[in-house]
Amino acid sequence: MACSKCLTIENMNPCLKKMEFPVRGPLLVRAAEIEKELQEGKKKPFDRVIRANLGDSQAVGQVPITFIRQVLALVTYPELLSDPKFPKDAKERAKTILSGCIGSSIGSYTESAGMEIVRKHCAEYIENRDSIPADWHNIILGDGATEVIKAVMELLINEIDGKKAGVMVPIPQYPLYSAIPAKYNMHMIRYYLDEANNWSLSISELERAVNEAKKCCKPRAIVVINPGNPTGQVLTQKNIEDIIKFAHKENLFILADEVYQNNIYDSNSKFFSFKKVLMEMGPPYNQMELASFMSCSKGYMGECGLRGGYSEIINLDTEVRAMFVKSISAMLCPNNIGQAVLDCVVNPLKKGDPSYELFEKEKSYILESLKERAKMVYEAFNSCDGMSCNVVQGAMYAFPQIKLPPKAIEKAKSLNQCPSVFYCFQLLEQTGICAIPGNGFGQVEGTYHFRTTILPQPEEFKRMLNIFKKFHEKLMAEYE
Amino acid sequence: MACSKCLTIENMNPCLKKMEFPVRGPLLVRAAEIEKELQEGKKKPFDRVIRANLGDSQAVGQVPITFIRQVLALVTYPELLSDPKFPKDAKERAKTILSGCIGSSIGSYTESAGMEIVRKHCAEYIENRDSIPADWHNIILGDGATEVIKAVMELLINEIDGKKAGVMVPIPQYPLYSAIPAKYNMHMIRYYLDEANNWSLSISELERAVNEAKKCCKPRAIVVINPGNPTGQVLTQKNIEDIIKFAHKENLFILADEVYQNNIYDSNSKFFSFKKVLMEMGPPYNQMELASFMSCSKGYMGECGLRGGYSEIINLDTEVRAMFVKSISAMLCPNNIGQAVLDCVVNPLKKGDPSYELFEKEKSYILESLKERAKMVYEAFNSCDGMSCNVVQGAMYAFPQIKLPPKAIEKAKSLNQCPSVFYCFQLLEQTGICAIPGNGFGQVEGTYHFRTTILPQPEEFKRMLNIFKKFHEKLMAEYE
Repeated sequence: MACSKCLTIENMNPCLKKMEFPVRGPLLVRAAEIEKELQEGKKKPFDRVIRANLGDSQAVGQVPITFIRQVLALVTYPELLSDPKFPKDAKERAKTILSGCIGSSIGSYTESAGMEIVRKHCAEYIENRDSIPADWHNIILGDGATEVIKAVMELLINEIDGKKAGVMVPIPQYPLYSAIPAKYNMHMIRYYLDEANNWSLSISELERAVNEAKKCCKPRAIVVINPGNPTGQVLTQKNIEDIIKFAHKENLFILADEVYQNNIYDSNSKFFSFKKVLMEMGPPYNQMELASFMSCSKGYMGECGLRGGYSEIINLDTEVRAMFVKSISAMLCPNNIGQAVLDCVVNPLKKGDPSYELFEKEKSYILESLKERAKMVYEAFNSCDGMSCNVVQGAMYAFPQIKLPPKAIEKAKSLNQCPSVFYCFQLLEQTGICAIPGNGFGQVEGTYHFRTTILPQPEEFKRMLNIFKKFHEKLMAEYE
Repeated sequence: MACSKCLTIENMNPCLKKMEFPVRGPLLVRAAEIEKELQEGKKKPFDRVIRANLGDSQAVGQVPITFIRQVLALVTYPELLSDPKFPKDAKERAKTILSGCIGSSIGSYTESAGMEIVRKHCAEYIENRDSIPADWHNIILGDGATEVIKAVMELLINEIDGKKAGVMVPIPQYPLYSAIPAKYNMHMIRYYLDEANNWSLSISELERAVNEAKKCCKPRAIVVINPGNPTGQVLTQKNIEDIIKFAHKENLFILADEVYQNNIYDSNSKFFSFKKVLMEMGPPYNQMELASFMSCSKGYMGECGLRGGYSEIINLDTEVRAMFVKSISAMLCPNNIGQAVLDCVVNPLKKGDPSYELFEKEKSYILESLKERAKMVYEAFNSCDGMSCNVVQGAMYAFPQIKLPPKAIEKAKSLNQCPSVFYCFQLLEQTGICAIPGNGFGQVEGTYHFRTTILPQPEEFKRMLNIFKKFHEKLMAEYE
């Protein structure tokens, strides 16, 4: 007698079926297969896969910051606190973190919002950044920014007057912001960034998007990614002010993804936090609800796999805050190593500390090198016929547009593929470069893009751009 | 002009309002306050709070396993790989783990299901435990068992024929299993464990519960916690067979919480995994869908704050599995340190390895000591008038019943408190002992319980039981 499945594709959670996360999608599966084929000695026109798909610096050769890793070794194995090899400041930092752990062990649960000491350091970091007071009670730590983003968005799920909650999301966007609404059956309100104006965010487009959306949902929140992912633009103070005014008028909760706040490359760009701008605007704006997100995975540290991040949530209603704290308590606590990494990032060393110079040297080497790569990618892609790329002002990605010949578009359609998917699969099969098709991030109908990171190390990145250029020219010629 | 909140208690996610997680509830808030008061020099009838509320060994003095911590220091700071202080096997283990990381760095993202090498070691561990083959593709790692439990339960959310998905949950239960259905608006079907028969699980009670529930939901899954939390019972093979037959008849997905599989104290008890029993029953049972959960937070390692855990999910429909993998991909990956801890646990050292003897000594010391404490708690509570406690066969808790005098019940009701809450608050205020009221886990109407861990170190635990006894006798006398 056969046993019929109790969980089938027909009766499973329908929202999970709709949800997509293309930076880990079918292209990645194929990339992994190709890596195995290469290992098995299969002949290819290339000798290795170049992973330019994910903002994962250490996967492509970035070296971790020494001080951070010393602190981690010390908190996990406190025997090393008596080892003269470790500098005094790393030991002090480890002791501070351990003193924030119950039973002085990194292996015990912390509060669900994270260790008090780390939350206090986050608040100090924000104060120093913005010259605006920050209350550590407003800081919530998580297993990466992702987890806190999800937790904050969960607060907004509710049907009001028979309408789903709507969340305004930029297009193109980091696919987490489409995955979460899909998962929770919220309505995603797409507002389009203006590619012709360096991916700027226009208020008239926000107006258009929200007004259309009101027919089918109750708009409740707006996501802004600054610096932009995948687009790399950095918002001006004026632009942020206008967004805040818009959000105020529409009574929207602001979700500011600011995980790339340390990644600014363009000398004409500066990072302004939503918190700073909103507070400086004074009443009524400084009373608005805002959640800002920060991560240990980006910046110069790139500690993606250690999963550290935080949110500062201001002006949250007291009762809602209590419910929020309760809602995260069942998850027990964010992992303590991620919290320890975060502490090193938000409470940086001071001049005179024994590890200060090395820390600064390692940090500025990485940031300077990323700056160069941001320039290189812009120049390389704009030198290709049929490709145009905006300035990469910040973050870790370029999102160029490819102007495919009609025959290439026909070919893609005959394969039942979006032309940007066709392009990226060809790229992968012919060169080993793994970049993500633009349709996963969203693009204006009839335009085609891809996202590449700027994370491969300088020599490899230069090599990658050369291969890319040749591939692109060949493909354009082939379908001319 | 005042700014009205866009997110209020009225318009926030209603499910989060309903959700409760009492092991981190108001009693804990008060315990933290008391600790602060003591620090500030306030006079109390006790000098410290004893945290017996949470299964958090290292918070109450358990020393971490040396080998695990050595491996963590080595993977976070690979410079130490050349340090002669570290044993060869710890270095080899660290190298193996690093070789499983992209770019050989613990700071890069892993696959969303976790590192292949760790998943393979989990499968080997299960094979050795059960003498039944295990496929590493069925292993999904997470930030603690909690995260994977949530992810698997999310698969089941769906309204079928206008009815919510129902999940059968034991009462008393670990409150995660009420929190998740509340959060996702699923129906929790309570089945009661039989306190008079050492918290055994009777099939007739399952029948009663499922038949009643069918009126208002579509039963889709059954949660079994074995060894039991908070109840400490260990299921027999026969009992597990009957549960499997019941689940088959009702077409239920089995969720087996087996995180205490290493915590068996009673010489008459033995751990049988649901997987083993189900596979040995042969067709049609060996085709049934089952998810088993395991954690690094319990057992002898107690690495709660490092958040490592896995699920083995067998017989999952292929298409559903693809959707499951997609659904977890947006979270990027479980933290790598938790994965590294898990590797040390599931791939233990072998006789002859340089660290083998120390590892075994540390492990058996902890498990033997827990065994003694399991006996102590049983004897101490049963020696109290008006208290009865079942044998703690396994896990880390006792869940005794308190037979409160009518006057105490009246007093509690006059304070608008459940009598078990009243009892635990009195206990905390008078003695500093922090135990969790039974209503948070669920108890038969009109009965009152509390949960205490057996985790405080032996001397402290003995002291705690003495204080407890005096408190209980005094309270009973007061309300006689």
